[in-house]
Amino acid sequence: MIDSIKHVAIVGGTHGNELTGVHLLKHWRSHPDEVTRNGFSTELHLANPKANKEVRRYIDQDLNRQFSIHDLKDHELSGYEQCRAKALEVLLGPKENPRVDFIIDLHTTTANMGMSLIFNSNDPLVIGMAFYIKQKMPHATLFYNPSDRLEDNFLISVGRFSGLLIEAGPIAQGLLKYQVYSDTHTAVMHAVDYLEQKNTEQLVTLPKQMVGYKFIKKIPLPENTEGEITAMIHPNVQDKDYHVIKPGDPLFITLSGETIVYEGESMVYGAFINEAAYYDQNIGLSFMEKIDIVLEDSAACPNLT
Amino acid sequence: MIDSIKHVAIVGGTHGNELTGVHLLKHWRSHPDEVTRNGFSTELHLANPKANKEVRRYIDQDLNRQFSIHDLKDHELSGYEQCRAKALEVLLGPKENPRVDFIIDLHTTTANMGMSLIFNSNDPLVIGMAFYIKQKMPHATLFYNPSDRLEDNFLISVGRFSGLLIEAGPIAQGLLKYQVYSDTHTAVMHAVDYLEQKNTEQLVTLPKQMVGYKFIKKIPLPENTEGEITAMIHPNVQDKDYHVIKPGDPLFITLSGETIVYEGESMVYGAFINEAAYYDQNIGLSFMEKIDIVLEDSAACPNLT
Repeated sequence: MIDSIKHVAIVGGTHGNELTGVHLLKHWRSHPDEVTRNGFSTELHLANPKANKEVRRYIDQDLNRQFSIHDLKDHELSGYEQCRAKALEVLLGPKENPRVDFIIDLHTTTANMGMSLIFNSNDPLVIGMAFYIKQKMPHATLFYNPSDRLEDNFLISVGRFSGLLIEAGPIAQGLLKYQVYSDTHTAVMHAVDYLEQKNTEQLVTLPKQMVGYKFIKKIPLPENTEGEITAMIHPNVQDKDYHVIKPGDPLFITLSGETIVYEGESMVYGAFINEAAYYDQNIGLSFMEKIDIVLEDSAACPNLT
Repeated sequence: MIDSIKHVAIVGGTHGNELTGVHLLKHWRSHPDEVTRNGFSTELHLANPKANKEVRRYIDQDLNRQFSIHDLKDHELSGYEQCRAKALEVLLGPKENPRVDFIIDLHTTTANMGMSLIFNSNDPLVIGMAFYIKQKMPHATLFYNPSDRLEDNFLISVGRFSGLLIEAGPIAQGLLKYQVYSDTHTAVMHAVDYLEQKNTEQLVTLPKQMVGYKFIKKIPLPENTEGEITAMIHPNVQDKDYHVIKPGDPLFITLSGETIVYEGESMVYGAFINEAAYYDQNIGLSFMEKIDIVLEDSAACPNLT
């Protein structure tokens, strides 16, 4: 049995040019019943209104990297998003003892990642939510990015449980696509349904384990001594998120058309392949490990004690 | 026989977040032979370096709407792109008597427009180039947007012949995709080959007419009294650039999922469907007319005299 969930927050526009969440918030403001369930209230927050107004990912820094307990306490960090993170912590937190129980943060990607459910915690409530949504939406992918909640710099880590980041794509920045909007809407409906069922101690039948992908590291695009990109994602890899990349497989292709292969020694899987937002750091893709994600018994939680 | 072409300019980054042209310029700076032909010189120009540095379409205004003769002469127009347009006219023009003969301007779109060849002139040299490229790349589409060269506000209108705008997609803003990069590279190779063949009076065998699409008008997204978007492109229309839209066909879908149909009386064709850059004016798509584009005999030019 879990502690009761009383306060849920749905957040959009954490990246100002990801319009899907922004417009879902507008929709739910005039249709609040869709996200309301017995037993808990649901708040709707536009996380980065200034960046959204300018249709940019951020003004000064990526907002979704500003929520580690250390950075939240560091008042030397005074960029727009660094201040906005502190304001959001006042609204939703404080991080050590949050008012809000569960945060669902809505994102999009230019990568062909479909409906990716990103979670940073192995708490049974969080993994259970991801499993529940994947049961209802089998095309969804589980993306596990383990991180200690207090150290975690994602916005979802400000809730009492580290929450769920919904990442839908492919979609360009600064626009809406009905399929992406509709899929994200559906995933959020399942998420609040799940919380209500857990809250009212209904039996939620979930598998003991499901296949997912665990984040390993980000891989830079090749660059020259001036820091300029000299190669692109290879066409064999483009749009092949969650497909295997084996040693010797093509990975990049230079501006002149020469192939650069993956020189690692182990098989990996790609994600965030050619995400436009990561070009500010010349990042080409993420490497992932395919894993079995295990849902521990929330009553016993042997691995969490 | 045409007047000899002596100066060609290839321009990229007119929109600062369309990286394909920017990186093709970088490539050609280290491989100038690829775009050089006997009889003419080829210049490479990054049109909007400031917007490119910030990976934004523009700083103050859309640069590719600033080149009408009226606006070029209006020194009250002093935004960044309005000044940059005047600087580019000094470099390439003047508009009434240009130094540069032919401008090829490289663009990308988030719409599923494939390789679109956009030209605003019915001059046989310009239409001949579009036909020549389409013969070599049959998947390319001819996009005709008739405009008087002096009144035209596109950058390509600064050349002695109103030039060619290459529009490749779909691709998100702020990234590179090998297929788009490679297709654009190939189209430019054909364009300079064509100019060399015309220049040296080689026989270029082209059809007398080819099917294309003529721009009619831009269609706004539905919005509320506050000017906020209330609907998206309908999934039946998304990615269906250059497909027919008949009276009564679904066109938009509201945030709540209600379909809005096309209420016009005539059959049209869509283009720039869900182009992210047009959200700044809440534009959803362009309506086009399917036409036969006729290549007049450049020696006789009966329709042009």
